[in-house]
Amino acid sequence: MERTLILDCVSKVGEAVKICGFVTTRRDHGKIVFLDISDRSGVLQVVANGELAGSLRPQDVVCITGKVSKRPENLVNKNLVTGSIELQAEEIEVLSKAEELPFDMGVKDLDLQLPTLLDFRGLTLRHPKIKEIFKMQEVVIDAFREALKEKDFTEFQSPVIIPQAAEGGAEVFEVKYFGQKAYLSQSPQFYKQILVPVFERVFTVNKTLRAEPSVTTRHLTEVTTLDAEFGFIESWTEIMDMVEYTVRYIFDRVAKECKTTLDLCKVSVPQISREIPRIKLREAQEIIFKRTGRDNRKEPDLEPEDEREICRWALEEKGSDLVFVTHYPVSKRPFYTFEDPKDQGFTLSFDLIGRGTEWLTGGQRINDYKLLVEKAKERGVDLQKSEIYLQAFKYGMPPEGGFSFGSERIVMHILGLSNVREASLFPRDMERVDVRLSTLK
Amino acid sequence: MERTLILDCVSKVGEAVKICGFVTTRRDHGKIVFLDISDRSGVLQVVANGELAGSLRPQDVVCITGKVSKRPENLVNKNLVTGSIELQAEEIEVLSKAEELPFDMGVKDLDLQLPTLLDFRGLTLRHPKIKEIFKMQEVVIDAFREALKEKDFTEFQSPVIIPQAAEGGAEVFEVKYFGQKAYLSQSPQFYKQILVPVFERVFTVNKTLRAEPSVTTRHLTEVTTLDAEFGFIESWTEIMDMVEYTVRYIFDRVAKECKTTLDLCKVSVPQISREIPRIKLREAQEIIFKRTGRDNRKEPDLEPEDEREICRWALEEKGSDLVFVTHYPVSKRPFYTFEDPKDQGFTLSFDLIGRGTEWLTGGQRINDYKLLVEKAKERGVDLQKSEIYLQAFKYGMPPEGGFSFGSERIVMHILGLSNVREASLFPRDMERVDVRLSTLK
Repeated sequence: MERTLILDCVSKVGEAVKICGFVTTRRDHGKIVFLDISDRSGVLQVVANGELAGSLRPQDVVCITGKVSKRPENLVNKNLVTGSIELQAEEIEVLSKAEELPFDMGVKDLDLQLPTLLDFRGLTLRHPKIKEIFKMQEVVIDAFREALKEKDFTEFQSPVIIPQAAEGGAEVFEVKYFGQKAYLSQSPQFYKQILVPVFERVFTVNKTLRAEPSVTTRHLTEVTTLDAEFGFIESWTEIMDMVEYTVRYIFDRVAKECKTTLDLCKVSVPQISREIPRIKLREAQEIIFKRTGRDNRKEPDLEPEDEREICRWALEEKGSDLVFVTHYPVSKRPFYTFEDPKDQGFTLSFDLIGRGTEWLTGGQRINDYKLLVEKAKERGVDLQKSEIYLQAFKYGMPPEGGFSFGSERIVMHILGLSNVREASLFPRDMERVDVRLSTLK
Repeated sequence: MERTLILDCVSKVGEAVKICGFVTTRRDHGKIVFLDISDRSGVLQVVANGELAGSLRPQDVVCITGKVSKRPENLVNKNLVTGSIELQAEEIEVLSKAEELPFDMGVKDLDLQLPTLLDFRGLTLRHPKIKEIFKMQEVVIDAFREALKEKDFTEFQSPVIIPQAAEGGAEVFEVKYFGQKAYLSQSPQFYKQILVPVFERVFTVNKTLRAEPSVTTRHLTEVTTLDAEFGFIESWTEIMDMVEYTVRYIFDRVAKECKTTLDLCKVSVPQISREIPRIKLREAQEIIFKRTGRDNRKEPDLEPEDEREICRWALEEKGSDLVFVTHYPVSKRPFYTFEDPKDQGFTLSFDLIGRGTEWLTGGQRINDYKLLVEKAKERGVDLQKSEIYLQAFKYGMPPEGGFSFGSERIVMHILGLSNVREASLFPRDMERVDVRLSTLK
């Protein structure tokens, strides 16, 4: 008999079907055994006698043939699409036998310490609540692509191996490259800019790698970043407009398509007011000073406590979970950042801050070749290794800018996860690459 | 005045507009200068007097205001969407001045040696014919995603940094990882298999990195691979069915959406007969022996000349540009490959061969935990570092398989490019990472 997907059983009451999937729970009731079977389409209750159910246990892989029947009225589960039916098992074929599980996977919340959750990643990802996190990541990434394609952006593939630390940072991984040294890309920045004169508007979904020597809840060494860059802007505010459009687009699709994930995590998508407020860093510091008495007005950046405070202000005063903070000092931004001609020493750049932390960063870039070379030299960028990047400016570059953010962080923030590792399928940090590095012989 | 995209000028005859873009060619005709201006939507002829045109030259970035007018009947260019109109320039603003180009970018074919083409990648990518290669890569990747989403596949993000050389191969890049060693992923194989019990059907568009110590026309060290894996197969032939569906889907979208690219390269999408022929390696060797007298019937693999011959056979006898060759010997395939129980020593695996070379590889995998551990040990796989991979089998894995191919190679094959480097935006090989490594100080 051909396999029927579980969801399709709903319209097959009275018919004989074969379903295939994983045993997720087993409940013995005297002579009768209830099994929950799940496949990619859903979960279904199966009723079997003890003999048929045999020694079946969670994570066994089975094909079950039987008849689809209506459940008695008082046993209907209204929270489940298949909650009004069940399968009366007539034959059970075991495709793969699972060994005994190290912990109960049938609970609603898998209450494990993070290290255990990750030590058993090959198993824990199967838990419905955990799996749903990555359905949301899929939607976030897909919505990012869709939003920008609607605005004429071209998707491209940015390289992972690069000839130098692109932004002059120290936290770069080194690769042995045929007897020479190469590095892992921390950002597709150079490549997306090179492509502005080619396609005008580009984006990439790309791996970026940072040798972060930190074990905070917010840092991974490997991140799937979402990057966009576009030319012929008349004002740098168009970049924030594009961010706002994109973030709104992502939230809309998440709200529509990730109801299960949002419900499981008991959260809703962030609020965006009609317009996300845009304030200069110094204005933000002034607001924080007035609200709390904390005087960071001379600092070049926001501290974590400042980020949380400015978010409280944005929500209370502007009805927005998100706020743009702009005009970071030149010294705090990469060499290619555009300085505000009307506000010397400060850049036409921004961070998007939400729910207390940075979500996204962006800004206008220097498009004048000579100025760019000068700034690159000042920061010690190797001009020879940047040759094809500099060509993009030498041979004509329109005014342009862009933005960048991590897919893991945005999922973490939407779902209110306490650690970004929970939003990465296979998180890498200084202590772990699948296995804990400290345990390796 | 607000910018009008060039394509939108077609419906604005008689109106004043402002267009912004790159000068692609300049032709001086006495007092009148013809400029071709291109933006992301198209290219437009602009007529200016000598004073307005000034010293404008190719790759200058400009905004031009003027009136859209109909071209005289005898000057209409029917090959161009904007061929019946032109812009009478009234004002030209230069946004960015290009330095003199090292070669003429206005020619139809950029006839440069490959090293020069790549030394000036920041410029040469702007050439219309080269740029179109990457519009096709975008379509191929997007079609791959769309095809599989229609079949219930979930997209996931596979890691780049891994704890060991996944398939035990030697050509793996080593990374300095916080005082320890890590490696760059040659394949998302382990991760896609781990996700079969989670999502049942998965795919990923992912960077794979191989330290290929070769400078052939077919090898890159960094490739954007398209990988799929799915469970609950009843027969391994379903994997070839899925490949066939996916490749057909990609070809259909390429034929529809990449007419410009195909025309520029003077090629058409490959022919697929109603069904792609499927023959065992030994049958292929027998056919080759009969057709050419070349006796490679005891070899464990096809040589390049054999691949070309079997493609000739497929086209002549089966009307297909593509052919599946199956049943490679166990020794030639990775440890996780499923052995044919009816044909011991040979695997349920296949290569898809087209136009003389390998396009894609796939097969059924071992899903039995104990057998997999045994095979992994035989090939020297580090079991501790494979722990989460092995968990996926220890705790129940349905019969499954999948396939993998490189986006650069498929674009190269469709367009008949002579070197895979032409199908990579920023190709990496043992001699080059943007710059030629031999030139570095």
